[in-house]
Amino acid sequence: MELVTIADIEAAAKRVEGVAVRTPLLFQTWDPRGSLWLKPENLQPIGAFKLRGAFNAVASLDDAARARGVVTYSSGNHAQAVAYAARHFGVPAVIVVPDIAPRVKVEATRAYGAEVVQVPIDEHEAKAHELAAARGLTLVPPFDHPAIIAGQGTAGLEIAEDLPDVEVVLVPVSGGGLASGVGAAIRARCPRARVIGVEPELAADATEGLRLGHRVDWPTADRARTIADGLRAQPSDLTFAHLREVVDAMVTVTEDEIRDAIRVLALRARLVAEPSGAVTTAAYLSRAAELPPGRTVALVSGGNVDPALLGSLLA
Amino acid sequence: MELVTIADIEAAAKRVEGVAVRTPLLFQTWDPRGSLWLKPENLQPIGAFKLRGAFNAVASLDDAARARGVVTYSSGNHAQAVAYAARHFGVPAVIVVPDIAPRVKVEATRAYGAEVVQVPIDEHEAKAHELAAARGLTLVPPFDHPAIIAGQGTAGLEIAEDLPDVEVVLVPVSGGGLASGVGAAIRARCPRARVIGVEPELAADATEGLRLGHRVDWPTADRARTIADGLRAQPSDLTFAHLREVVDAMVTVTEDEIRDAIRVLALRARLVAEPSGAVTTAAYLSRAAELPPGRTVALVSGGNVDPALLGSLLA
Repeated sequence: MELVTIADIEAAAKRVEGVAVRTPLLFQTWDPRGSLWLKPENLQPIGAFKLRGAFNAVASLDDAARARGVVTYSSGNHAQAVAYAARHFGVPAVIVVPDIAPRVKVEATRAYGAEVVQVPIDEHEAKAHELAAARGLTLVPPFDHPAIIAGQGTAGLEIAEDLPDVEVVLVPVSGGGLASGVGAAIRARCPRARVIGVEPELAADATEGLRLGHRVDWPTADRARTIADGLRAQPSDLTFAHLREVVDAMVTVTEDEIRDAIRVLALRARLVAEPSGAVTTAAYLSRAAELPPGRTVALVSGGNVDPALLGSLLA
Repeated sequence: MELVTIADIEAAAKRVEGVAVRTPLLFQTWDPRGSLWLKPENLQPIGAFKLRGAFNAVASLDDAARARGVVTYSSGNHAQAVAYAARHFGVPAVIVVPDIAPRVKVEATRAYGAEVVQVPIDEHEAKAHELAAARGLTLVPPFDHPAIIAGQGTAGLEIAEDLPDVEVVLVPVSGGGLASGVGAAIRARCPRARVIGVEPELAADATEGLRLGHRVDWPTADRARTIADGLRAQPSDLTFAHLREVVDAMVTVTEDEIRDAIRVLALRARLVAEPSGAVTTAAYLSRAAELPPGRTVALVSGGNVDPALLGSLLA
């Protein structure tokens, strides 16, 4: 299987420049180990790294295909990212969302000008394919595509530029697009650094799969137990092949460790993180014994948190 | 009176490089007016812009003076900024804090290795001068010094670099060091932009003073009414002279407008702001009719908020 290259990621970096924020690395002075930098991808325009991949995918289309429009299936940050990218180019976007999606996320997607189609959750991927065929739209999948992986990898390129002697990079793993891209960039630019994937214990299918050497399926209901709603997907063949190549180890974190990390990020780093965005900080804080020592970057992947959850963790 | 120049600010920018974070401008896509960028100074190492001025002041000392150490009076972000800067250079720092200062802030200052001296609030400035004389320490005041103003001005320089066609810059006013420095940088680099100072209605002494053309004193107890605890100071002769020169207008905001802005910053911008850091966003959101139209930067000055306050605004 052909993997995304550093040249693909460099090309993506040119495309996303000026649209994705060049997020700074934030050294954390309160940390007694003195070796933590945060990469705050929650500060991207739609509140998550997803903009990098979605924008790269839409920007990579030829003009005729792009003009016909794009379609995706997602209830989360990828939906908003595709809607945002399509609006940037002034082309139609159709987002298929499960009918159980929170109304606030549906409204946010509509606010970017996208057409939202709601269907039962087990039909939403099929419906997107159907709409693509019927209307001539291009499907922009959440992670299973080289352009998505290359786009997400631009965050890794920036880490390598800003902290060339980084020793450990912590990155969340769900469908694996982010970890694949960031891992590929770090491998190429900082070959001595270790790339560690982080999953919630309750959705640790990639951890199990990488240990066994092949993809495993966890029941949807099991993966739905974690509050990290952005980490309930599973790698595809394409992303799994990347993870095997560019991720050195996996670490899992508990739900309580995720909650603690959200609180620490808000009060010490002054960053609002969603549960999925806090798992890397949770690993750094609670799983030090399982991590290599040294200069560590924890990628904070997103900040679209339920206000009541955040409030309850602070009060 | 001699005012800080753009050359002073450029020299300060060289000194703070690599210590202060080069904070990005964050365009806010949720804003229906589509003209808001945030400058997130809450992401500085100590959680506030204060690091810029304090570090510039300590870095500007000659080696012998710096080696003897520094002293300041503050219970807030300036205290931590001076402690952090002194630790960077490995020199002693003594921070005089009022005995009513919150323990959490005292502990944060001690954590940076500073010696903390607690005295009654009406003695803390005098005590700092006394310690400076007795121990040969250099006093690093919170705002009344050209090196502090020039250091704070580096935030303005970055705004001008990142958004050269900025039309409106919103900056909080308390002692006036930040507004003086940012205003001087914007005047020099973006002469067509308007610099607007923002105060809480309950501590609007600079607004009144600029209208009257001379400094006015508000009773401490009056200024203490606002939740924006970082905006209770008053300009000095030096900063007031700058404000008259580089601030085009003042806007005041209510306590409720500040609270709303903290909530919006957390949920839409994913930034934790303290009340003082939220006043500029409050002005943009609630006082549009009093502001010039156009591309606007709101400087979010700090993020050291009381967790219970933040929690209560989200729950």
